[in-house]
Amino acid sequence: MSTLKGAAIIGQSGGPTSVINSSAYGCIKTALENENITTVYGALNGIKGVLNDNLIDMGKEDPEELALMKQTPSSALGSCRYKIKDPEVDDTDYKRILEIFKKYDVRYFFYNGGNDSMDTCNKISKFMLKNGYECRVMGIPKTIDNDLEGTDHCPGYGSAAKYIATSMMEIYRDARVYDTGMITIVEIMGRNAGWLTAAASLASYKGNGPDLIFLPEVPFDIDSFMAKVKAIYEKNSKCIVAVSEGIRDKDGKYISEYGADLAKTKDSFGHAQLGGLASFLANYVKEKTGAKVRGIELSLLQRCAAHCASKNDVEESFTSGKAAVENAVAGITDKMVGFERSYVNGKYVCNIKLFDLTVVANTEKRIPLDWLNETKDGMNEKFIEYALPLIQGEPDIIKEDGLPKFVQLKKIK
Amino acid sequence: MSTLKGAAIIGQSGGPTSVINSSAYGCIKTALENENITTVYGALNGIKGVLNDNLIDMGKEDPEELALMKQTPSSALGSCRYKIKDPEVDDTDYKRILEIFKKYDVRYFFYNGGNDSMDTCNKISKFMLKNGYECRVMGIPKTIDNDLEGTDHCPGYGSAAKYIATSMMEIYRDARVYDTGMITIVEIMGRNAGWLTAAASLASYKGNGPDLIFLPEVPFDIDSFMAKVKAIYEKNSKCIVAVSEGIRDKDGKYISEYGADLAKTKDSFGHAQLGGLASFLANYVKEKTGAKVRGIELSLLQRCAAHCASKNDVEESFTSGKAAVENAVAGITDKMVGFERSYVNGKYVCNIKLFDLTVVANTEKRIPLDWLNETKDGMNEKFIEYALPLIQGEPDIIKEDGLPKFVQLKKIK
Repeated sequence: MSTLKGAAIIGQSGGPTSVINSSAYGCIKTALENENITTVYGALNGIKGVLNDNLIDMGKEDPEELALMKQTPSSALGSCRYKIKDPEVDDTDYKRILEIFKKYDVRYFFYNGGNDSMDTCNKISKFMLKNGYECRVMGIPKTIDNDLEGTDHCPGYGSAAKYIATSMMEIYRDARVYDTGMITIVEIMGRNAGWLTAAASLASYKGNGPDLIFLPEVPFDIDSFMAKVKAIYEKNSKCIVAVSEGIRDKDGKYISEYGADLAKTKDSFGHAQLGGLASFLANYVKEKTGAKVRGIELSLLQRCAAHCASKNDVEESFTSGKAAVENAVAGITDKMVGFERSYVNGKYVCNIKLFDLTVVANTEKRIPLDWLNETKDGMNEKFIEYALPLIQGEPDIIKEDGLPKFVQLKKIK
Repeated sequence: MSTLKGAAIIGQSGGPTSVINSSAYGCIKTALENENITTVYGALNGIKGVLNDNLIDMGKEDPEELALMKQTPSSALGSCRYKIKDPEVDDTDYKRILEIFKKYDVRYFFYNGGNDSMDTCNKISKFMLKNGYECRVMGIPKTIDNDLEGTDHCPGYGSAAKYIATSMMEIYRDARVYDTGMITIVEIMGRNAGWLTAAASLASYKGNGPDLIFLPEVPFDIDSFMAKVKAIYEKNSKCIVAVSEGIRDKDGKYISEYGADLAKTKDSFGHAQLGGLASFLANYVKEKTGAKVRGIELSLLQRCAAHCASKNDVEESFTSGKAAVENAVAGITDKMVGFERSYVNGKYVCNIKLFDLTVVANTEKRIPLDWLNETKDGMNEKFIEYALPLIQGEPDIIKEDGLPKFVQLKKIK
């Protein structure tokens, strides 16, 4: 185990979550306390912060203020959606990164993000290895989508799941208040993996959730959907449906594209911009049934509602950031910090496990199909058992005037 | 002060709030403990429960379960949107109500709702007085809209305001995560009164809120709106706007009607069904600026997000229900229980004050125009001072499996 002294850079990338800053804080705090790490830099707006030499000195932040990162949603260091090129095609960015690493004697690089970020992290790690520049590179995962390969679950998922389950319970109560008929369609995030939408089943498990749940893992048939909704509505005069934004028909066409109002733009990663599904389905169902139908899009609060975070998620996120530093200092590199679960006397325990960045990068973990019920319109006990520990506990949130206190970084370069 | 022995009925009406059940629980618990009240009935689905003889015996509920009403959003007894006729025009309903009151020896009637419900309450009260049937009638207010005349504020408003302010802070953080330009338009409930939309300014007060706020109290000019958004966007590359669903132009036309997708239906109270404003404005702004624009509708979680309730609101609601019973038993009738604020050593104190039902019924309290800033696109310190005490405190929520526990009534007739 070789001792490596030098500076560290941490960057954040991808979409916000409620707890990505808790991971970053775990990393920053641990790095600041470590004697082998000379300076801790925060890269503003992810890898672009490195490329543009836009680094802030985390050691110059007030420690008490910095601790508020643990309860501040979205990326405190700023994020980017910059897709780094394949070094075989164009290594300009990598050469620039190496230049910056050399300039500040950066020997530790921590990158906090989802699949695309792990890919960035992987490419940088391999480039440094190939070029003989000693720098320990660790990925710190985050994604509400929960779709990273290897790890039992992803930091950010538990809080998003808790928000979705809680909101679904409240919507369930709201939707049943009148004695008149009502169909409610709730659109939940998740392009390709149904983990978030599946979390709505936790509300059903508590007796206050949707009747039907449709995941992107299962081809969506609009006629079968209509028949199911109709049957439940005719029986109960209420029907609540949770749909993933990413549901597609058997030909792979997004149901959201069925509507006229689909935004045709593509973002820089080539994902189709989705939206308007709830409104399309609500109109469709209204037309077919004549019932009162409400379409609700949970929208971006799913990924930033830190006020409804899971304490387990906040703490596990912190631990993953901390473990990234501890492992790197101990000599590990080219890994992503992930989780492995075990049960001790029936009690859920979350342990750190390291995963090869190559394995993690750019793969998407879907929900096992045998975690769905037989009719593929809801989840079974396997999912419930999996998800319940992830949403446990209420973080102690420091408030001021009845509102959460969010970190204000000084951002000293 | 005359002693009046007999049964009591409590009913709930109008749209849900996070704390309407806390009011009802304050009323039910106090009534169950009072020796003058022989039986406490819950009317299922408001006044329709009385008309249809659909009453449940609240004394047969498990007290511990009943206490969960305090943290359960939406109306546990069910609500209705049934508009009772003017007794001068048609007194059929009133005769039926009197019949039911006589059948169960009902001497106390408590009605928990908003403006329309206070009107119902008022008409019943006046009919009973006119017909010489001794029954003490008390209105227990609730409305997230905060638009009831007389009372300093309405139970339900504080929690909705807290949810809106908290969510706006989170959206603010989310919307600023990338270094690319972004305009965000958030649609907030409130047909005629801007109290809810104004609550977004609490987030701005905390430095994490919208740049612009548009209330229905001020005629909305789309060109002036566009110019303001553009100026802020060009300066900061970000702009966040909070708009009330009820904003109208100088001719009184709803801006939401500008869009093609306005639902043309009217609900039974004659209010136009609003919606789609955020999406209309987002498209409009996108077209005019070419910027990335996101439209967000906070939707019905504003009125049912009990997980983000204000403790002050929960407790005040409970107290208003309790006070309704205590005052009625003491001989008072034909009143609505409301609030009056005072400051003791600079500390906010909320006192019970009774208001004539006639005064309250069917009037709407708007935001004083001098609580807005000079450019009428934000709130000033008068509003902040008014609203801050209402969102204080975190209720202790009983949870199970990381999710709130909602009341399950046995509903024994």
